[in-house]
Amino acid sequence: MSETLTTTYGTGFDDIRRLAAQLRVDSLRATGAARSGHATSSLSAADLMAVLMARHLDYDWHDPGARSGDHLIFSKGHASPLLYAMLTAAGVIDDDELIGTYRRFGSRLQGHPTPALSWVDVATGSLGQGLPIGVGLAWVIDRLEKRDNHVWVLCGDGEFAEGSIWEALETAGAKRLANVTAIVDVNRLGQSGSTELEWDMDAYARKVGGFDVEPIVIDGHDLEAIDRAMTAARRSDRPTAILARTIKGKGVPEVEDLNGWHGKALPDDMADRAIERLGGVSHGVVERRPPAQQPPGTRAEKAAAGATSRPHVELPRYERGKDVATRRAFGDTLRALAVVDDVAVVDGDVGNSTYAGTFAEDAPDRFFECGIAEQQLVSTAVALSVRGYVPYAATFAAFFSRAYDFIRMAAISRANLRLCGSHAGVEIGEDGPSQMALEDIAAFRAILGSTVLYPSDATSAAALTAAMVDLPGISYLRTTRGAYPVLYGPDEAFPVGGSKTLREGKDVALIGAGVAVHTCLRAADRLAEDGVSARVVDLYSIKPVDHAGLVAAASASGQRIVVVEDHHREGGVGAAVLESLADAGASPRVRLLAVQGLPGSGTAEELMNAAGIGVGDVVEAASALVKEGDGGS
Amino acid sequence: MSETLTTTYGTGFDDIRRLAAQLRVDSLRATGAARSGHATSSLSAADLMAVLMARHLDYDWHDPGARSGDHLIFSKGHASPLLYAMLTAAGVIDDDELIGTYRRFGSRLQGHPTPALSWVDVATGSLGQGLPIGVGLAWVIDRLEKRDNHVWVLCGDGEFAEGSIWEALETAGAKRLANVTAIVDVNRLGQSGSTELEWDMDAYARKVGGFDVEPIVIDGHDLEAIDRAMTAARRSDRPTAILARTIKGKGVPEVEDLNGWHGKALPDDMADRAIERLGGVSHGVVERRPPAQQPPGTRAEKAAAGATSRPHVELPRYERGKDVATRRAFGDTLRALAVVDDVAVVDGDVGNSTYAGTFAEDAPDRFFECGIAEQQLVSTAVALSVRGYVPYAATFAAFFSRAYDFIRMAAISRANLRLCGSHAGVEIGEDGPSQMALEDIAAFRAILGSTVLYPSDATSAAALTAAMVDLPGISYLRTTRGAYPVLYGPDEAFPVGGSKTLREGKDVALIGAGVAVHTCLRAADRLAEDGVSARVVDLYSIKPVDHAGLVAAASASGQRIVVVEDHHREGGVGAAVLESLADAGASPRVRLLAVQGLPGSGTAEELMNAAGIGVGDVVEAASALVKEGDGGS
Repeated sequence: MSETLTTTYGTGFDDIRRLAAQLRVDSLRATGAARSGHATSSLSAADLMAVLMARHLDYDWHDPGARSGDHLIFSKGHASPLLYAMLTAAGVIDDDELIGTYRRFGSRLQGHPTPALSWVDVATGSLGQGLPIGVGLAWVIDRLEKRDNHVWVLCGDGEFAEGSIWEALETAGAKRLANVTAIVDVNRLGQSGSTELEWDMDAYARKVGGFDVEPIVIDGHDLEAIDRAMTAARRSDRPTAILARTIKGKGVPEVEDLNGWHGKALPDDMADRAIERLGGVSHGVVERRPPAQQPPGTRAEKAAAGATSRPHVELPRYERGKDVATRRAFGDTLRALAVVDDVAVVDGDVGNSTYAGTFAEDAPDRFFECGIAEQQLVSTAVALSVRGYVPYAATFAAFFSRAYDFIRMAAISRANLRLCGSHAGVEIGEDGPSQMALEDIAAFRAILGSTVLYPSDATSAAALTAAMVDLPGISYLRTTRGAYPVLYGPDEAFPVGGSKTLREGKDVALIGAGVAVHTCLRAADRLAEDGVSARVVDLYSIKPVDHAGLVAAASASGQRIVVVEDHHREGGVGAAVLESLADAGASPRVRLLAVQGLPGSGTAEELMNAAGIGVGDVVEAASALVKEGDGGS
Repeated sequence: MSETLTTTYGTGFDDIRRLAAQLRVDSLRATGAARSGHATSSLSAADLMAVLMARHLDYDWHDPGARSGDHLIFSKGHASPLLYAMLTAAGVIDDDELIGTYRRFGSRLQGHPTPALSWVDVATGSLGQGLPIGVGLAWVIDRLEKRDNHVWVLCGDGEFAEGSIWEALETAGAKRLANVTAIVDVNRLGQSGSTELEWDMDAYARKVGGFDVEPIVIDGHDLEAIDRAMTAARRSDRPTAILARTIKGKGVPEVEDLNGWHGKALPDDMADRAIERLGGVSHGVVERRPPAQQPPGTRAEKAAAGATSRPHVELPRYERGKDVATRRAFGDTLRALAVVDDVAVVDGDVGNSTYAGTFAEDAPDRFFECGIAEQQLVSTAVALSVRGYVPYAATFAAFFSRAYDFIRMAAISRANLRLCGSHAGVEIGEDGPSQMALEDIAAFRAILGSTVLYPSDATSAAALTAAMVDLPGISYLRTTRGAYPVLYGPDEAFPVGGSKTLREGKDVALIGAGVAVHTCLRAADRLAEDGVSARVVDLYSIKPVDHAGLVAAASASGQRIVVVEDHHREGGVGAAVLESLADAGASPRVRLLAVQGLPGSGTAEELMNAAGIGVGDVVEAASALVKEGDGGS
């Protein structure tokens, strides 16, 4: 090896050059040992990250939980070898872990970064997500904390084709978030070929500038230019994008700027030559420069940091029998939760429909309006979760489908999000199928570790909305557009994972959630007239579901169950019931009533009847089941 | 009434002014009669649509199926009253239908437009979707048809916050699609308040211009300015955006430019005053100007128009026992399908991973590369379907979650899409959870009228890929990353809705799809050693599912079933089995084995074992079930 090993890298450019070489060498060594991984995408960004790490990132790698200091997000998560090489150069993971465990079973050094590493705020690897979350962090810090933490996001050029990048830049520009910088590694090559804009740096600058984000175009391998750009970025009074022209595979001439090397380790001989040429293996560590620790200043941040205790929340109370929409109860409860300093609400220009907007009246500083941009909506909620807040985000249930990939990734990030989808099912009536969520229960149930709640009345909606404060992971509350009678007294408890038996009955159990509970109650009345005794169960907690309650309901009603839901049949409430009962010893007969066919406009009742989930349908299915005779064992 | 009724509106501006008044009056009358709907959002765009209709839209309203002529898409679908008023003014629906049925049960005049109306190409109402589809149409027409049909898309300003709008403008600008014009109704007000940019027309122009789309800023109520803009738009050699500054509620001074009137009908007295002021009710019809009909010119379009018959397709053949990945078989089959002139393929920069890229080698003109922009990917496929082609779109299964709202809406549009998601489940190994689809089966099953297929080997993958050509609606094929043995001979048939019994057995049925079939086969071997006779079922068709086959399998195996899947438990293959059996008389005991916990990196086998879906897990579950004794009735 031709160079002397450096023990500690300082801030001089010679040291940074050595650091960059070490990051490249370690990226090659890690991918080589794993025989997979994105080597060339790491090499293009190594100079950018070396300068950032040595001179600009105000961050203590030895104290990743500190609230003071910058954030760094790898939006181009496939450059994980570079990130892990940085952790090694920071002295917080050792060489054996880097080379011995990268991409292997049980390792925290996964193919794409996840918060299994304490230095990683959010999982990335689905492109176009790191920047919206980074912008969310900048917004939260700027609005609620008045800190000077800067948010640096390393982006790929390919991901600039994702619309979510533009939702993020729009938000950054419009809110003038000077504390966020996108560092864009414009290496011209995507996975399967060149990007649309290749190295047209003017085009990138024009686009970014049009969104009121300051473009700074540089050669991404010129260390001094990178340094000047980062200095300018931190000083700017606007959000910034460092548009760095780079070479994919930089440092390894045999693969530089060549197609066909995306997502691949180099063959051993090629890697050996490259490492030799880069100066060989070194084990330098970047000088530690911990930022000054500053305690939480605002009431909101103190609460988010756990420094204050939660006040008592007075939940809204509703009179039994009165017609109140569950979405209204959700809004009332959010408003009541405004006294909790770390609760924040995110809206997508429908706050007057979801009733999330009521929160803004009492806590305008903790109300984040994203406009019609659901990906940014969920990203902002994720950012709030990263900083320790208790975010609620609401839109029409149908429109969370716009952000499904973000919700999926948030679960991998172990973010704690409380999502409320209003206007669910055909019940919404006149607006028609584009506004009707009929897939949301299936979609949310399939999310890792999620909770899915669907209250039938205002009392339970209020109780469950409040319970979500303490729920970990992704919790989802489905609310209904129309107003229906309050079924429960104000002191009723609604544990997550529970259910309520609203009526006892021995011949058949009618199980529903949300609006279907009211349908079941009316059906039970009609069945009683025919001499059929129907039990009615309010399955307000769809995941986790009340296994014991379902088994008991089946057992008490001759193993005959009818499940009714304002949702497609596949994967919905009925599926939740079946999945739960599959593990039970008993095998009840279950009939599923779910939305059939393509709905149009009409009144809620017309549409529920047309979809096969009306009172008559329930009566018919229950009667047929009872006539069939006894169920299984 | 002060004005004389005009019977036929010509192209003079006086006539257009009367037409615009009629569109406004009819929008007010329709929403008034329905007592709901978006009146003020219709009023702001009435002048734009009056000029378009009278002088620029090259379209025969009496022949909506014609291939010649322009497209008009209401991306702001909530302005449906305006669209329906236009249909009345075109003389294709009558006043009774407009006033008597709008938003009512059974009407084709729904709250938001759907193809229940022959003049509507696609359902809108989820904002930000009409423009990407319109750009897709322009791309398809430009690339495959060489026609001069122009695509006009009426957009709202609020929806410009959606990232998908920028995916569309990026595509239009980069491909220089001169045949598409976004007409942006900048009325400054969203649903819950003002938009971020309000009336900052320069900001809109800067943004749009940055995307290489020509901005044309006008007063959206100046008929002559609108006319000049539309003339310029059609003549431009670049895509255009007419940025029209408008007033929400224009024509009704009592609500003009006021918050709080979004999505509402006016009270009767206010509407009466407004109608009086607008000149009263009139029933004029716009002069018919049918465009010259031009027969399909290209081979691709002739095939799309049904003018040619399909050639025989020679499917790839695979040797039994050889290891071949199903994604490879998908790609081989796409390549074989290249001889079918109306088949087109859409890629999101992963064509070398999904193997969709193989198609480009034989039919480059029918291969649409969208870059990393999954919303535009699905929108382009929808556009191909609208023009009669047979689109296949492929990306990683996980990343279709990015376009879930577009898929949901495509189902309402009755589009015929063939979607292939590769790299499903923990089986992908080292890349980690961000790349693992574990929710896709639940999500796709819940889509209205969808078909969900999951082949276990190359032969079935090829057969099912080919079968998708003729499937209506949304069909989804899930492929696997790794190579596994070919299980079937090349002449085996795989009807959609069928299943295959790979091994007979009387004690228990092991049911899987995709990679899990191989797990089940290995488990059956191990169980045989323990004296347990296990049936193995390849459930390659998950929706529709083989109900009779499942009942038969349960019956032949002592009503004992183990379902294994590389997917989360909720809503997946197991749920499909349970939902199907719920309607059967018998009640088998079913155990579901699905992915548990958060996976990391590792080999496919390590990760499947860790997730609880390994061979050992199947053996254990099956053995326990057999030991428990007999199942239900």
